[in-house]
Amino acid sequence: MDKKKMGSETLLYPMPAVLVGAMVGKKPNFMTAAWCGIAASTPPAISVAIRPSRYTLEGINATGTFSINVPSTDLAPKVDYCGIYSGHKQNKAQIFDVEFGSLQTAPLIKQCPVNLECKVIHQLDLHSHILFIGQILETYVKQDCITDGKPDASKIDPLIYSTLLVFIDGARKRFIRIKAVTTKNS
Amino acid sequence: MDKKKMGSETLLYPMPAVLVGAMVGKKPNFMTAAWCGIAASTPPAISVAIRPSRYTLEGINATGTFSINVPSTDLAPKVDYCGIYSGHKQNKAQIFDVEFGSLQTAPLIKQCPVNLECKVIHQLDLHSHILFIGQILETYVKQDCITDGKPDASKIDPLIYSTLLVFIDGARKRFIRIKAVTTKNS
Repeated sequence: MDKKKMGSETLLYPMPAVLVGAMVGKKPNFMTAAWCGIAASTPPAISVAIRPSRYTLEGINATGTFSINVPSTDLAPKVDYCGIYSGHKQNKAQIFDVEFGSLQTAPLIKQCPVNLECKVIHQLDLHSHILFIGQILETYVKQDCITDGKPDASKIDPLIYSTLLVFIDGARKRFIRIKAVTTKNS
Repeated sequence: MDKKKMGSETLLYPMPAVLVGAMVGKKPNFMTAAWCGIAASTPPAISVAIRPSRYTLEGINATGTFSINVPSTDLAPKVDYCGIYSGHKQNKAQIFDVEFGSLQTAPLIKQCPVNLECKVIHQLDLHSHILFIGQILETYVKQDCITDGKPDASKIDPLIYSTLLVFIDGARKRFIRIKAVTTKNS
């Protein structure tokens, strides 16, 4: 094989950069996560991997609910902040405008074009991380990100998280953007 | 709330388009999956959701192993094919060049710039899908997709899968490409 053997690495491309929301005590808290994926369609479910030490975990365990908020690229600095600073030390309740849907225990970020309200249906202890499986109870999409009644990814303009290196014009970047270039018609 | 309530939908942006490989009987088979995410770092693990009816599932269950292959955008037509046609009806063994790493039961696609060899450590029955958690045993990256010894996402040029609509220049597209545009330095 001509390829380079890299060892056991978490290489997946692309990965999203989402904000996981939970009420910790009475305060909303948000953490950035890239290790998130859809898990099933019936019922709709999503998985997200969270380190046991995370402040957000306390809220998820206490309420059995959480939110997944999909940021657009203009929110990159705030997404970065929520990935670097822990709710153990920083109060992250004021970073975004918070709203609630049908659950009062899953804070939604008003500025994010897509929000999912989730109820924990499974959690798997995978040593470094707890993998939460959340049933998606409701989804909300900004009106200006809808085309013909459906969510439009090009208007949502999501962030892509790169755990490893992305070089653009010779510089390393942590976040990149989707610039839609067609490779195939649907 | 100003947003549109969409019901319970699997909205996550971006999602990858990967090829899941397994040996079914003595033949390699590959199916396209978008519902895939990293699940843990120690040990490194990945999740992938697969419908119980899928041909690939037989191979994963029989061998306890599978591969995740990250295609680059030039492979979009083949990725599309592997998502549309089932191994129950089509022999997909000849679509790609197949190679093997340390496992003889997890076929790797030579044309894909990134390959992961995985061993099933958990499987969760989520009704419509089985969520497989695979420990990542080894990863392989094309030499020309490496910068300073590390995988470089801009060279890997991965596909983004859009389950819902993406409109580009007025037309609906199923696959889109990352065109790296910086939003934040790392």
